[in-house]
Amino acid sequence: MAAPIEFWFDFSSPYSYLASEKIEELAARHGRRVAFKPTLLGVIFRTTGGVPLTELVAPKASYFAHDFERSARFAGVPFRHPSVFPIPTVNAARAFLCLQERDEALAVRFLHAAFRAYFSQDRSLAEPEVLTALATEIGADPVALARGMQEPAVKDRLKALVDESIARGVFGAPTIFVDGEMFWGHDRLPQVERWLASGPF
Amino acid sequence: MAAPIEFWFDFSSPYSYLASEKIEELAARHGRRVAFKPTLLGVIFRTTGGVPLTELVAPKASYFAHDFERSARFAGVPFRHPSVFPIPTVNAARAFLCLQERDEALAVRFLHAAFRAYFSQDRSLAEPEVLTALATEIGADPVALARGMQEPAVKDRLKALVDESIARGVFGAPTIFVDGEMFWGHDRLPQVERWLASGPF
Repeated sequence: MAAPIEFWFDFSSPYSYLASEKIEELAARHGRRVAFKPTLLGVIFRTTGGVPLTELVAPKASYFAHDFERSARFAGVPFRHPSVFPIPTVNAARAFLCLQERDEALAVRFLHAAFRAYFSQDRSLAEPEVLTALATEIGADPVALARGMQEPAVKDRLKALVDESIARGVFGAPTIFVDGEMFWGHDRLPQVERWLASGPF
Repeated sequence: MAAPIEFWFDFSSPYSYLASEKIEELAARHGRRVAFKPTLLGVIFRTTGGVPLTELVAPKASYFAHDFERSARFAGVPFRHPSVFPIPTVNAARAFLCLQERDEALAVRFLHAAFRAYFSQDRSLAEPEVLTALATEIGADPVALARGMQEPAVKDRLKALVDESIARGVFGAPTIFVDGEMFWGHDRLPQVERWLASGPF
């Protein structure tokens, strides 16, 4: 089986959410799996001098707020703009990694539950209680998760991933790598699909 | 017949070029015409605080240089990165408007010839000789064009269009309006098409 495609995301990125709802089916159509890799846009923006979508100049910021919702409807994905946005996602990313070390399928269930909670149910992933509630909802042990998120190994793993993403030129999310080729944004999924279907173009 | 869709562009914008090669067929599939409207990204960026793609932080800038070419291949549009980029496009925009006042079809031929000259033949539209050569190539009078570009009415028309684009929230190019709904970027053409096909979503 060919190498998995890499899906770099931040739980506070609406376009990461939209793409997360499509990427596994897309990969499966071409015999691939998805390696989900969290990063932290806050750190990336501080390091690279980038600007979050919400801190853009006024006309651009209001366009994007509209585009999130329209793009979600276009993709057929439920979306409700969170009342607090963006949020710190370090805890959510650690929770994902903590689960991923033990059970990949469970971690992916958490990922989808967390994205949907934040972007369609207005549940802030910055709140530890939301994360433990999500653990319960997907059948994970909330007490073990709360403890695991604080483990040095999990913290180190996230730090290493953020460093790796920056070293590899990731400047926003979602960023998808297919056999080393980098694609940024949910709107590049058609190009990802062609690359998977018929190779480099 | 329904109102034309508006296509706001800058001759120095690669994604405007890519979209310009698709927009008329797309509109025609839904019984629409295209109203081509030049604006000047240089003025827009100065006014709104935006940043040209080429002045972005390093990883983003090099990604975009790659994305221009890959997106062109994906779209099946010839593309060669111009050796001078970006360029001032005030003269090219005035040339387009000058032709548009006399003959819409001729102006549209000029638009396509100019975009292709810059983005596939490395001919800089900042050079007045390139503009007059293009006029000759599309069957327009180069002397009349050179004179027309300097007319106060043409200069005023461009200034009015730039002001209008800023007033309507345009912050980049291409920007497409369909019955008042704004879409930014060639990668929103699929959304434009759905909007045209089945109305607001």
